[in-house]
Amino acid sequence: MATIRLVLVEPANEGNVGAVARAMKNFRVEELVLVKPCSLGEEARKRAMHGASVLNAAKTVDDLDHALIGTDLVVGTSGIETSSEKRFARIAIPPRSLADRIGPMDGTVAIVFGREDFGLFEEDLSKCDLLVTIPASKEYPILNLSHAAAILLYELSLPRTTRRTIRRASGMEKEKLHEAFAALLEATDYPAHKRARTKIMFRRLLGRAVPSKWEFHALMGVFARATKRIRRLETKR
Amino acid sequence: MATIRLVLVEPANEGNVGAVARAMKNFRVEELVLVKPCSLGEEARKRAMHGASVLNAAKTVDDLDHALIGTDLVVGTSGIETSSEKRFARIAIPPRSLADRIGPMDGTVAIVFGREDFGLFEEDLSKCDLLVTIPASKEYPILNLSHAAAILLYELSLPRTTRRTIRRASGMEKEKLHEAFAALLEATDYPAHKRARTKIMFRRLLGRAVPSKWEFHALMGVFARATKRIRRLETKR
Repeated sequence: MATIRLVLVEPANEGNVGAVARAMKNFRVEELVLVKPCSLGEEARKRAMHGASVLNAAKTVDDLDHALIGTDLVVGTSGIETSSEKRFARIAIPPRSLADRIGPMDGTVAIVFGREDFGLFEEDLSKCDLLVTIPASKEYPILNLSHAAAILLYELSLPRTTRRTIRRASGMEKEKLHEAFAALLEATDYPAHKRARTKIMFRRLLGRAVPSKWEFHALMGVFARATKRIRRLETKR
Repeated sequence: MATIRLVLVEPANEGNVGAVARAMKNFRVEELVLVKPCSLGEEARKRAMHGASVLNAAKTVDDLDHALIGTDLVVGTSGIETSSEKRFARIAIPPRSLADRIGPMDGTVAIVFGREDFGLFEEDLSKCDLLVTIPASKEYPILNLSHAAAILLYELSLPRTTRRTIRRASGMEKEKLHEAFAALLEATDYPAHKRARTKIMFRRLLGRAVPSKWEFHALMGVFARATKRIRRLETKR
């Protein structure tokens, strides 16, 4: 698994730097390197929230070369998409493709973000192995710096974050629920010619919802209760 | 394709509201509704950048119910993942699954974001058809409000591969189904202290399944039939 390093080139807004640090903490990325940043004060700390540790550990360097020491792959970020082959230096891949490529990698990957106003210069871009662009509105494609960082961190973290472990109902439990549904159809004298369709409808619906064990039991309780009540009332009649 | 409406419940930081407006402009989402927001001034405008048009067109309302008028699916956002099945009201799906579900939908989908400090309250959550959580560090899972918005907007804006054109049930139709489910619980003397939980369980289940118009009608038929049969048998007794 690759180590991610975020590099911000000449960030001018200390709030953005703080917000990036927070997003890094959210996605468990620790290495932050700042190339000639603005001075960082109260606003940066405020926006960093619990990402203060990332902010405090950030390294400050004088040029991009120093920020890239020890990296195995350098990814530049670009707010402008181009499809012109002539401007090949600007051709970028989307974040998901980047995640697919980095996923199986070891080593250190630098993700380089440019200035808030002018992005990365040609000289910076020439040091990047590949470029990534977040697909956005043609009318206004320039994302806030920390938004761009958050989206990339989110994409790159996906294979690595722990998946939730809700207990799904077993196949047998599910069949019991379908039996309970069928019994309810019968108890209500549901039109015979529609029963098969309705049962399949219910199966598909549950298939898409992927219910938890608990949800299955709750739903089965409702159906069984209705059927039982109808049957009891019928015998009393 | 569904229209996305972002709803911010009691945002306390005007900078966040501005940043959300910018992210919306970046991803071509225009409907912003604010529930009892803080006052919006210079900082909000500054952070909105070219999203000022979204900010200016934002509607302000007094409660969540008014923010949800005219929506067909209500998605709550939650910073806390739970693996406890008993706390089913908090069980959430990841953003990508949400995008897959919303992709084929028509109508209006509300994405509801909670307060910066306390998120959404139980009362707010009970109005949501399903919940979405951005998988993040267990140590510090709480993202900045505008970061969470940017990530969801990004996911929802990506072109969906599966383009089905099934007619989805409208918000009004769904409420009718939920009423039918509630009526069935009542007809079966379902334990009063469990009713609220079971109704929310059913809402979440359907929210995840995103049923078609046809499925809604079929399911409503089953419930209405059962309730009617019980009521008829009772009067005959």
